[in-house]
Amino acid sequence: MNIRLAQLNPTIGDIRGNTDKVIASIDEAKADGFDLLIFNELITCGYPPMDLLERKDFLEAIYEANNEILTRTHGITIIYGTVKPNPSSVGRKIFNSAIVARDGIEIAQINKTLLPTYDIFDDLRYFEPNNEFQLVDLNGIKFGISICEDIWYNDNEIQYHNYDVNPIEKLCELGAELIVNVSASPYSKTKTESRSHMLCSHSKEFGKSVLYVNQVGANTEIIFDGDSLATDSNGEIIARAPIFEEANLDLFFDGHLKAMHENAVTHQLKKEEQLFKSLVFGLREYLAKTKLTSDVLLGLSGGIDSALVSVIAAEAMGPKHVHAFTMPSEFSSEGSVNDSVQLAKNLGINIDEISIREIYDQFIEKLNPVFEGTDFGVAEENIQSRIRGSILMAISNKFGYMLLNTGNKSEYAVGYCTLYGDMNGGLALLSDVYKTEVYDICRWINDEYYKQEIIPQSIIDKAPSAELRPDQKDSDSLPEYDILDKILFHYIEEQYSREQIVNLGIDEDITDKVIRMVDYNEHKRFQAAPGLRVSSKAFGSGRRWPIVQGWTRQDIKSLT
Amino acid sequence: MNIRLAQLNPTIGDIRGNTDKVIASIDEAKADGFDLLIFNELITCGYPPMDLLERKDFLEAIYEANNEILTRTHGITIIYGTVKPNPSSVGRKIFNSAIVARDGIEIAQINKTLLPTYDIFDDLRYFEPNNEFQLVDLNGIKFGISICEDIWYNDNEIQYHNYDVNPIEKLCELGAELIVNVSASPYSKTKTESRSHMLCSHSKEFGKSVLYVNQVGANTEIIFDGDSLATDSNGEIIARAPIFEEANLDLFFDGHLKAMHENAVTHQLKKEEQLFKSLVFGLREYLAKTKLTSDVLLGLSGGIDSALVSVIAAEAMGPKHVHAFTMPSEFSSEGSVNDSVQLAKNLGINIDEISIREIYDQFIEKLNPVFEGTDFGVAEENIQSRIRGSILMAISNKFGYMLLNTGNKSEYAVGYCTLYGDMNGGLALLSDVYKTEVYDICRWINDEYYKQEIIPQSIIDKAPSAELRPDQKDSDSLPEYDILDKILFHYIEEQYSREQIVNLGIDEDITDKVIRMVDYNEHKRFQAAPGLRVSSKAFGSGRRWPIVQGWTRQDIKSLT
Repeated sequence: MNIRLAQLNPTIGDIRGNTDKVIASIDEAKADGFDLLIFNELITCGYPPMDLLERKDFLEAIYEANNEILTRTHGITIIYGTVKPNPSSVGRKIFNSAIVARDGIEIAQINKTLLPTYDIFDDLRYFEPNNEFQLVDLNGIKFGISICEDIWYNDNEIQYHNYDVNPIEKLCELGAELIVNVSASPYSKTKTESRSHMLCSHSKEFGKSVLYVNQVGANTEIIFDGDSLATDSNGEIIARAPIFEEANLDLFFDGHLKAMHENAVTHQLKKEEQLFKSLVFGLREYLAKTKLTSDVLLGLSGGIDSALVSVIAAEAMGPKHVHAFTMPSEFSSEGSVNDSVQLAKNLGINIDEISIREIYDQFIEKLNPVFEGTDFGVAEENIQSRIRGSILMAISNKFGYMLLNTGNKSEYAVGYCTLYGDMNGGLALLSDVYKTEVYDICRWINDEYYKQEIIPQSIIDKAPSAELRPDQKDSDSLPEYDILDKILFHYIEEQYSREQIVNLGIDEDITDKVIRMVDYNEHKRFQAAPGLRVSSKAFGSGRRWPIVQGWTRQDIKSLT
Repeated sequence: MNIRLAQLNPTIGDIRGNTDKVIASIDEAKADGFDLLIFNELITCGYPPMDLLERKDFLEAIYEANNEILTRTHGITIIYGTVKPNPSSVGRKIFNSAIVARDGIEIAQINKTLLPTYDIFDDLRYFEPNNEFQLVDLNGIKFGISICEDIWYNDNEIQYHNYDVNPIEKLCELGAELIVNVSASPYSKTKTESRSHMLCSHSKEFGKSVLYVNQVGANTEIIFDGDSLATDSNGEIIARAPIFEEANLDLFFDGHLKAMHENAVTHQLKKEEQLFKSLVFGLREYLAKTKLTSDVLLGLSGGIDSALVSVIAAEAMGPKHVHAFTMPSEFSSEGSVNDSVQLAKNLGINIDEISIREIYDQFIEKLNPVFEGTDFGVAEENIQSRIRGSILMAISNKFGYMLLNTGNKSEYAVGYCTLYGDMNGGLALLSDVYKTEVYDICRWINDEYYKQEIIPQSIIDKAPSAELRPDQKDSDSLPEYDILDKILFHYIEEQYSREQIVNLGIDEDITDKVIRMVDYNEHKRFQAAPGLRVSSKAFGSGRRWPIVQGWTRQDIKSLT
């Protein structure tokens, strides 16, 4: 039996486009002589379709797509993920299903059992869970078919819910010879490793080959890496698809599963390289799927964050489509312009200089009657940031380029950023990347990727500064970034308590201060641009934190 | 048996403060001779605590509060909502429970059965559902105790999920004599009516009195109105608590439930009055619970939205705590300043004028090298809005006042607002109030509430305009507001399809244009300030719409 796994990139809600992709893939697989073709989860509507699933007209369009796909299955068996109606008068209205079809006939409908409802996942908001198990006989081979979370069972990176049913175990008890999983499992920087480890160990545990087909693509905040794979019955990977692109994996089953082609079965990228590629992919996808523009703009401050964003943007869109601006004020160091100009030159992107001094002076003059007698402070600092944000948005509005936000996760966490200023932008590339990771990626770019000084060394070497008042340094307000990021990682990703963090050997006062800053700056993050999720716990839809709350001790003020 | 229903206002996560409230209420009820005291849902942590529930230290603090409350129950029986651990090794880690306690002993733990997971609700993200039913015998009376959604069963305003278990029916089958419901049911402008109708009809259906205790208070976006009530066994309301404030309802049961005091059992407010009061309450609560400030500021444009926000703010915080600014440009009509000054005078709030002309001219001059050869357009319009937004935020940063956003739901829906400009603010009071409703409330304020022209008639009479270019009118870009709001209501709240809207007799092209504007402006709303929810479907956490999507037809461009 010739089996193809088709790792496709659907667009959320583009049912016509996604259906066309499926049909083209079917036609190609038929021409290539395949007996069985397997697609990813919810391929008709993309994952996650969110509240589009509450619209009747949307569901009807999916059901029409299901009918259309059925008519194209003459001479081939397909397994694909889609929405099916729940015929019962009780429960939720729909199932998250895998359909098995051949010769225009729907052979089986498998519904998703384990419906993740944590972090970014809201499956129980929409889908009725399955609680019956069946095998599907294809050419005399018994297939155990499952959907995404069904195969993770209780082996997620963070276990929010301990499931009492193990669908794969159920299918194996029924006598499954091959395990299929149609999936839409999001990327995180530790996920390619944890996911393949989970798949291999389950494959080994049950002594079955696993055919794992994952969605590729990015949808607003969430990146899907693909990384579809197949194992032999010993839990060894025999074929593995590339990450961040559409691909087919071609296999043959004769009692044992074998790869048809010699596949590079591992792609262990260096952490920095994988992160860089995920961000390039996330940006490219956002622009391609919104169809808004192929051009981006950003402000280059002379700092390391905007430097990294400019490199990502040039890689994603090509240097001619990246428009940089340096906007010095009286507090800007000489390096802020020079280093930015050098960086732009190295990357081959255009850069223009727009001074904000005179606009700032006008703001101060107009505000003088209201501000009279007060000292220079956060208000004046933020005016500068907001002038820059307004200039960049004006250029965005004028030419249709999308503004890229350059803030990193450490800054977002503690609110070291200005609402309506440097927080402006259509997409925040680094909002899930800690400052220390920004440094690591930048060093990798110079040392290993470009193997030359693309990012001027002076940008990497200078002490981080917002340059909004004389001689300002980030370390005036914040702990050193290695300490800060350690606290943040344990507080956000690991959900450590204050005591657990202090027990790591971190100063109590610093820990208290950082935790409070994180909690009280939720009001800023609430209004932040969507950001690319690359960790197991990103700010955004996967971390639902109250703005109004009395849990966090209030005896110090947050930064502004 | 003397029974008190205590309608309390907890703060999310303020476990110490909430526990103190509960204990004070217990002591008071003992002194007043009550046998039974009933509190609202999750009173220890407030509803909804969101992802605080994923923190172990947070749960432990609740469990400590439970122990502390238990020690205070000598001589009185209480029923209160709280979190309890799930002792099972499978499922979610916690229950949403009602605890019955007396004399330091926990008599019973009732867990919530129906866990709403739609709109703003994420109960299945955290709580394990109950599936066993028991009565609680107190003084020989059999109580059937339920939690919030349990009593709604399948009678919500929008039915997302058809439950197959009716907890109240189960309790009545077991022989319940009285039905208790501890609740945290959010306000919407139609909810006081639909909720009391539901309670009365269920009370009548089962022939049982209902003791309904609802949370009061507001938590970021979500307002809880209270409106606790008790019915006799014929489904007639015999006591009803006021809305938007803490209150006790005192009752007596001797086989029949009776009110101890003569209560005004109905409070049918006029729609405009109720909406106005809910917005005043929501603002007051946000400021009181964040403890940020007691002062607010806003820009008065001379238009009706900012006029209404200023009246709400003056009502909520007192006129001395409201700081208004009029910021004319070359495109501002004479009325924009004069009408604003008159309004401020009528309200007794301070107003300052800050012209944006010179700052605007500086922006244009600095952008000239980049903009050269282009026509005046959206970019130039938005610069004006962003200058105003930056001025207001500078004053906010300088003095610590919170900026109020003045945009209405119609504008947010179609994106007729400027990101980082007039969308700036800490709280959006009108983001769930349609433009036509804004007019209705303003007319009610003048005609019935103040019974004088507080809002200058010229503000009510003038054609809506953003005044960002010469002779601009909203109707240049948008359908008339009565048509627009009709489409929006049916599209957003009623989830009508395009065809269903057209079938209401609305022009096809207008319908298409409006739907597309709504869908494509999700990227703006993603970055919008939190807004007070007053309808059954508000923008914000209850409406999860993808930014990147291909469902909406893309053949026209959205507004910017």
